[in-house]
Parts: sequence; C-alpha cells; structure tokens
Amino acid sequence: MPLMTILTEADLRKIVSLDLDAIACVESAFEALATKAVAMPPILRLDIPEHRGEVDVKTAYVPGIDGFAIKISPGFFDNPKLGLPSVNGMMVLLSSRTGLVEALLLDNGYLTDIRTAAAGAVAAKHLSRPESSVAAIFGAGVQARLQLEALTLVRPIKQARIWARDIDKAQLVANELTEKLGFPVSAVKDPERAVRDADIVVTTTPSSRPILQSTWLQPGQHITAMGSDAEHKNELDPAIIAKADLYVADSLKQTRRLGELHHAIESGLVKADATFSELGSVIAGSAKGRPSQEAITIADLTGTGVQDTAIATLARDRARKSSVGTKFES
Amino acid sequence: MPLMTILTEADLRKIVSLDLDAIACVESAFEALATKAVAMPPILRLDIPEHRGEVDVKTAYVPGIDGFAIKISPGFFDNPKLGLPSVNGMMVLLSSRTGLVEALLLDNGYLTDIRTAAAGAVAAKHLSRPESSVAAIFGAGVQARLQLEALTLVRPIKQARIWARDIDKAQLVANELTEKLGFPVSAVKDPERAVRDADIVVTTTPSSRPILQSTWLQPGQHITAMGSDAEHKNELDPAIIAKADLYVADSLKQTRRLGELHHAIESGLVKADATFSELGSVIAGSAKGRPSQEAITIADLTGTGVQDTAIATLARDRARKSSVGTKFES
Repeated sequence: MPLMTILTEADLRKIVSLDLDAIACVESAFEALATKAVAMPPILRLDIPEHRGEVDVKTAYVPGIDGFAIKISPGFFDNPKLGLPSVNGMMVLLSSRTGLVEALLLDNGYLTDIRTAAAGAVAAKHLSRPESSVAAIFGAGVQARLQLEALTLVRPIKQARIWARDIDKAQLVANELTEKLGFPVSAVKDPERAVRDADIVVTTTPSSRPILQSTWLQPGQHITAMGSDAEHKNELDPAIIAKADLYVADSLKQTRRLGELHHAIESGLVKADATFSELGSVIAGSAKGRPSQEAITIADLTGTGVQDTAIATLARDRARKSSVGTKFES
Repeated sequence: MPLMTILTEADLRKIVSLDLDAIACVESAFEALATKAVAMPPILRLDIPEHRGEVDVKTAYVPGIDGFAIKISPGFFDNPKLGLPSVNGMMVLLSSRTGLVEALLLDNGYLTDIRTAAAGAVAAKHLSRPESSVAAIFGAGVQARLQLEALTLVRPIKQARIWARDIDKAQLVANELTEKLGFPVSAVKDPERAVRDADIVVTTTPSSRPILQSTWLQPGQHITAMGSDAEHKNELDPAIIAKADLYVADSLKQTRRLGELHHAIESGLVKADATFSELGSVIAGSAKGRPSQEAITIADLTGTGVQDTAIATLARDRARKSSVGTKFES
C-alpha cells in the first residue's frame, strides 16, 4: 500500500513562507515553462450556478521536477453567508515517475497565496527598475498584503500606498503593513494619487471594470496586474497594454483568454495575433526585459500550474527534511 | 478549519461492494445525466511520455446530489517493472453547496472498478433479454471478474465462458469464478466459440484491434464493450455498430471521441452525425430499450464522471453511518 504524507494548513505555514526560496522556485518554474517540454493542459472548470460555485483544477508537469501537483480550487461565493470562506482548496502531489500520490497538501489555498505573491516578486525582479522604492497596491485582500511583502524581497521598497474601494479596509491594511515592514504605508482615497510617482504598481482586485487608467502612467513605471484570472475580470484600461513599451505574460495562452491582454484584444487596441514575450523567456534571457529606464512595463499574471507544481514540491521537500506532517497508508 | 474524513482502500472495501445498491446508485446517475442539468466538463488529461505515464482527472456535478467527486486516475505503464501497479488513483469528494472537501477517498482505483462493473450491470438490465443465462467475457483482468459478477446481480446467469489472449490467465479466472459464483465458468481458446449461443457478451480488454467480429453475432445477443476508454482502443469490429439493431452510449460526447463508436465513424460505416441513444435516456424511458427478442443490442461504455460522483457519495454516506474512516482537520 502506498505511503503518503498529509500536510495540513498549519503544517504548511510552519515550513513554507514567502521568502527568497519560494521566489526562486517559482522563478525556476517560469523558466522551465519557457525552455522545457512542460505539459500544462487547459484548466478543468466545473460550474455550480445554483450555489454560486466554481471549481478549477490545474496541473503541470515540469521535466526535471520529480513531482507534479494537481490543484483543486473551489470558489463558492455564498459561503460568507454561512460563515465560511469563499475560497479554499487543496493540492495532490504525485510522483512524476510512478504517478503514486506522495502528499496531500490540505492548504485551504495557502500555497496558492504564496506562489501567486512569489510570481509578483519574480515579475518585479525582471521588469521594474532596480532602484524602485515606491510601491502602489490596489486592493485590500490577502494578495494586497503579500504582493507588497514580495516586492520588499527583490526591490529596496521604502514607501507604499494602498488604494481600495473601501478606504477603511485600505487603512487597516496600511496600518498592518507599516508595522510589519517597518516603512510608511499609507491608505489613499484617490487611485490616481496612489499611482503618481510610484515605481511599481500592483493591482490585486477582482474588478470587472478597469481601475488603472492609461493617462495616469509615468515613464519608468512597472505594473503587475494579478487580479484577472477569469474572462470577466479586468483591472487595466486596455490602452495601457497598447501603450506599454513592454508587455509580458505569465502564459500567453492564458492571458489571451483570461488576462488583461484578452480585454485589450477585445477592445480592438491590440491585434489578436500580436506576439508578446512570456516571463519565463525573460528569465531565461531569450526575450528582452526592461528596454530602458523610461520604459513602461506590464506583467500580466493569471496563475499557472507550473507555480503549483513548484511550490508543492518545495513543501514536500521541506516536510521531509523537518519530519512535519502525518504519514498515511492508502 | 474544515473537518474531512479520510477513507483508505481497506476502509472502502469494508463499506462498498458490488451489490444492488452500487448498481442502483450508478443507474440513478445515468438517469440524471439524461434528465437533469448535469455539469460534466471534458476530462483533464496530462501526459508524461518520459515515464509512459498519463493522468486523467474527471468530475461531474449532478443536481440533487449534495456532493461531487473529483477523480484523479494515473496510469504509469512502466510501474510493473518497479513492482508497482500501473493504475491507481483517488477521489476527492466536495460539498456541492460550499465546495469544502468532505472526504478523501484513497481507493487506489477500487471505487472505479466497482462503478465500472455496476455500469455493465445497468446496461445488461436495460438492454439484454430478461432470461439471459449464458455470458461470454473477453479479458482476464479485474473487470473480467467484476463484469461477470455484476451480470449475476441482474440476470439469471447459469453458465459463462472466459476468453483471453493468454489461455492460462483465462483458466485461472474461470476457476476462481466457478468457485465464487457457484455455476460453471470455462476458459475458451477460440473467441468465436466463446460467443456462440451466449446471451450476453462483455468485452473488457485494452485491445487496439477489434476482437469481436460482426459475423459471429447471433440474434438476441447483447454486447457491452467497456474496454475502450482512449482513442486508440478498439474491441468491436466497426461493422457491429453499423449492423446492430440498437446502439446505446454511456455518453455520446465521449463515445464519439473515445469509444467503439469513434472507430465505426472513422471506418466510414457510421455517419459522424448519426444520432443514437444514451443509457440514461433508456433508463428514464425517453428512449427505447431492446426493440425485440431477436434484436442485437450494443452498450458502449467509456466511463463517466457521474458514476464517480455517485459511488463517492455512496461511500461517504456509508462511512458516516458506520463511523468508518479517519477524521482530519485541514
């Protein structure tokens, strides 16, 4: 009978955090996506409209990584009425060689939060100006917090602004982050003001109408949009994609369908067959990164299965080393 | 933190077996597939050619069933060299209302075996002559055994023949089943002889070339083909589909792509847009079953997500009643 390890959210929080290792493993995964024969099938999606529910299942096999994750991500949007979180989920880690289940990662979405924030750090590392010190974050959720933290690991951030539709929530996040990160983080009512003179802008909202406007952007800024992971979501004015000096996708196949690019194509401002680089190619050096100090750069992140495979194998390796988790025979 | 139940293969073997309840739950699932707004997205498939591996992920939501299964089925065909089974797998059962994981069914493929055999019983119940007493089974694997057992639950089987490429394996299965079922089961070298005067023929092989020939068939016979669950697999001479008085699919969407129907269409003997019934419509009474005593009927089974959801919820209900399994907080 195969032996597997079960890791709960509490176990995983002990052994995986948003740090340079997490960023490095996600960076390698993106590089592999661009340079190796990665197998990343289309997302399996099940909708349960009666309960405002949806489930996404993602997976990716990366040659050279000895495990691959199958991630189950449910989102049930009536859950808060029942006192339950909308989003949760788990990952199953299988051996790439035998297909046997090696670990059940009952993370309730925690590993997704970490790998998503790590992707923001990777984008900033390869696309923003190295001296970037001012960040603007749109949104007041888990990713708003984590994306700012992630930036501090790759850029000398000294000041940040949070804008959110609900200024009270923005203030709460700003207070928390000021304390945690040790530099001033302020809540800002006007999104245009939040963006002014920022070096890096990260949008983390579930908005279905553009928030960041093209006319607000200034030379040298880098923008990471990571809120759009479904057809109807849209944070950036489509003119931004058309105007940017460099647009980079995590996966063009996905951003053409789900990301900000999809809206720019739909609006007619970008041609459907226009070609762009992927983050992995920039990391591998086969595509150019930031072209100049003055360039405006965009990273369009929709979330990929290779990130899940990367973070899940990191979690398994750490669990092995520190003997965390419960062994289980199926 | 959500509380889930973990059920191992040993737990599941205690509470779920091939019986009339299992058959009834799979029958209801097929009926729902034909009559309700079932959501059954295309199978997610990942290939790992380096290790002759593949993984299928299936799911289906059936309105009225309070849970839905996500099934992970890996097949790694170099495993026997390592002393491991080629096929294993597990299911995750989620709440249809909240998306929370309710149970992890670490069944190593056991529940799939049961729900697949149960589908054979459902097909025979609705398509074979009620007095059917002689069965012919092609194959000598787990399904050869279970399909014959399944037939005995719905038809007064008194005699059976097993044909397999390897006559020694066929003899082994025949001996086992004679003892278990209490009627004569013989191994037969010639597949044509195995089929002669049989009332029901079930093919369970992974063959990629037709084994059962059209010229062998006799009036009144029912054939269930359940070995074909991938494009290249093919057990029935395509002329059988063209010649049969009634062809019924578990899911036409799937049999057009994966099943015996797919080969009949490819060979030009059946038109690509020809319409056929599904098993669920026959069960629901909206499509006709066996047209006459003399008719030759075919059931083409490829395996559906609704069967997984049905058997997984049955397993969870039985585990609750009998307090089997391990509770786990994620």
